Amino acid sequence: MTEESPAQAPGTVRPGGRTARTRAAVRDAVLTGLSEHGYPGLTVEYVAEHSGVHKTTLYRRWGGVEGLVADALDLAGEDSWTPPDTGSLEGDLRALAHEVVDTFGDPSAAAAPTAFVAAAFQSEQAARALRAFYGERFARCGTMLDRAVERGEIPAGSDGAAVAGAVSAPLFFRAFVTREPLDAAQADQAAAAALAAVRAGAYRPARPR
Amino acid sequence: MTEESPAQAPGTVRPGGRTARTRAAVRDAVLTGLSEHGYPGLTVEYVAEHSGVHKTTLYRRWGGVEGLVADALDLAGEDSWTPPDTGSLEGDLRALAHEVVDTFGDPSAAAAPTAFVAAAFQSEQAARALRAFYGERFARCGTMLDRAVERGEIPAGSDGAAVAGAVSAPLFFRAFVTREPLDAAQADQAAAAALAAVRAGAYRPARPR
Repeated sequence: MTEESPAQAPGTVRPGGRTARTRAAVRDAVLTGLSEHGYPGLTVEYVAEHSGVHKTTLYRRWGGVEGLVADALDLAGEDSWTPPDTGSLEGDLRALAHEVVDTFGDPSAAAAPTAFVAAAFQSEQAARALRAFYGERFARCGTMLDRAVERGEIPAGSDGAAVAGAVSAPLFFRAFVTREPLDAAQADQAAAAALAAVRAGAYRPARPR
Repeated sequence: MTEESPAQAPGTVRPGGRTARTRAAVRDAVLTGLSEHGYPGLTVEYVAEHSGVHKTTLYRRWGGVEGLVADALDLAGEDSWTPPDTGSLEGDLRALAHEVVDTFGDPSAAAAPTAFVAAAFQSEQAARALRAFYGERFARCGTMLDRAVERGEIPAGSDGAAVAGAVSAPLFFRAFVTREPLDAAQADQAAAAALAAVRAGAYRPARPR
């Protein structure tokens, strides 16, 4: 648990530690509720009961279920995750793909991200938070490409966030659209395809064709 | 409207034309309901009112909302869609990507597929129907690859369904996961990336590495 004070709505500032603990407790209750009941079944009452934070406080600080879900996503984005660093771009992309497959292969790890993706179909606020979450997450992957350029593996200029998205996209697509199973072979294929596309310059700024 | 008789539950067979018309009317009502209210808001009562088919008939033949959604997807898969045939694999993949972007760029065209993808988060029956729909749809794309092999553009052996999925995946990923806007440049990038991966052999049967 961090002692950082999150951004507060005016008039709700409290000592940093207590605020952060409250926010984390609320976030935990939101994640549990999403995992157990999904977005359509999540209620402010449920979060109040499972966080120990009074319902009126939840309404005042988060506005309602949409705000609670969006803030849980904001908080998820404040973690210290860094992209893989295996010594080669091929290894990094493969490790990244396997992280995605491992997450969706573990029901307890998959529950929260799945619920967030589902919530975004019904809540514009959740959709905005999801866009911000993945935007920031994939931006961190720029370092993978920077290192590959430094090692002389690829020319400079590819969009690292686009490459990270390209590795993830076919795996999320199977999990959430075509509803096909995910396995290690899928991860390897996603990484190999993204690497080939990087090498072909598909993620460099568009040129006239 | 087709006059083909769809598969029937025992004891519910009726003359083909009337059955097909009923099924299409029910499907239309399901699509309208999904577009207007999403899966959580769809009810058998709504479908009865908008299709003119009695509620007890809907329950008897489709079981309920989950069965109605799954059958609408089954019916959507019975269309005569064929993959693009532009004379080159590059052109075909690009045309396919633009079809996806055009669909999601048009709110009225996007509503039903979006609602189906959302429904699969809440209904295992919808998820199975979605898997069957995309499996069959992408299988049709094998002809794109066959033609490219015949033209000598690529070696034989790539999985056409996987390639079609690879073109679609980054676009669906932006639409439904990262919630980013889609435009023609995204379509071109998806097609270029998939083509590079095909050429690199990413969609041929896995070899030991």
